[in-house]
Amino acid sequence: MTAATSEAKVDNGVNVEALMGAREALTNAPEAAQFKWRATVKWINGTHSRSSIQTFYGLGAEQKHKAEYTIEADHPEVFASEDKAATPVELVLAGLASCLTAGVAAVAQNRDIQLRSVSATLEAGMDIRGILGADSDVRNGFDGVKVTYKIDADASRDDIESLVAQSQKRSAVYDILTNPTNVSVEVE
Amino acid sequence: MTAATSEAKVDNGVNVEALMGAREALTNAPEAAQFKWRATVKWINGTHSRSSIQTFYGLGAEQKHKAEYTIEADHPEVFASEDKAATPVELVLAGLASCLTAGVAAVAQNRDIQLRSVSATLEAGMDIRGILGADSDVRNGFDGVKVTYKIDADASRDDIESLVAQSQKRSAVYDILTNPTNVSVEVE
Repeated sequence: MTAATSEAKVDNGVNVEALMGAREALTNAPEAAQFKWRATVKWINGTHSRSSIQTFYGLGAEQKHKAEYTIEADHPEVFASEDKAATPVELVLAGLASCLTAGVAAVAQNRDIQLRSVSATLEAGMDIRGILGADSDVRNGFDGVKVTYKIDADASRDDIESLVAQSQKRSAVYDILTNPTNVSVEVE
Repeated sequence: MTAATSEAKVDNGVNVEALMGAREALTNAPEAAQFKWRATVKWINGTHSRSSIQTFYGLGAEQKHKAEYTIEADHPEVFASEDKAATPVELVLAGLASCLTAGVAAVAQNRDIQLRSVSATLEAGMDIRGILGADSDVRNGFDGVKVTYKIDADASRDDIESLVAQSQKRSAVYDILTNPTNVSVEVE
């Protein structure tokens, strides 16, 4: 097998050469690796809000997405709300889902594995007595998250399991959920 | 001041009476408080994916949002991707932003504070040498998140700060970010 042949054959749409180049470049320029991700939010009414995402900082400079992306959130009718959008905790699940899935595609490309289809279901338990303040021993957040992938790829089951494990190992959102992060909340 | 007068005057669009009723009901029926939030994700190409949110479980029964909500994610061009949507970590910021903001509206309603406008900016630092695998001592996720609210309301600065503090105390996503959660990732 030559690298050229396998590169021509496997295409998951991820530019692994560029990522490998970035890894090497940033190893020697750690200040360029310092990113700042941003969002702004505006309250609409009740539990309904709209977040906007456009600028970020990285590679030593201000950066801008190709477009401004907006994401609405609301609470469901069983919480006496209007259900105009997904709930905030479901947005977190979408963040985890998309982070792990992007990782699967990138790792597969790097390992010369052609993906045909990738999907996953996520389920997170939550005892809502926490957020309602009904029981101070109940945490507000998830009591656990289960992610189940279904992957059709040109690879053995072992190789597919190893792909998913490697994506998990390098996932930003998996790390954010499984480890504590300091969050400061202030009024301007 | 009578309760009836203030209820008629303050309207942030949150049905606090229903939430207080739910708190009381669920204190005596903890099994109904067990929710399951769900998402499914499908890989599109490269780092681009689409998550869908529709069903959840709670109050002892299967529940359904009024519509299926879809949320796309991608990586930016500086990661050699096509930037077709917000990044997964920005979705997490939108989740935090919307959770805290819904909480501000609910707590304000409960405290008879009329909100005129609520907005916030969020910024999260991240050293991308983690996700690139350039330095195993660098974590993959955020190194911290800063949320700054700007609130125009019929209340003193102290009362506004107390509002925001109470929202933080009851926020599911704030808890998810600041405390560890077990996440299992499997292949079907």
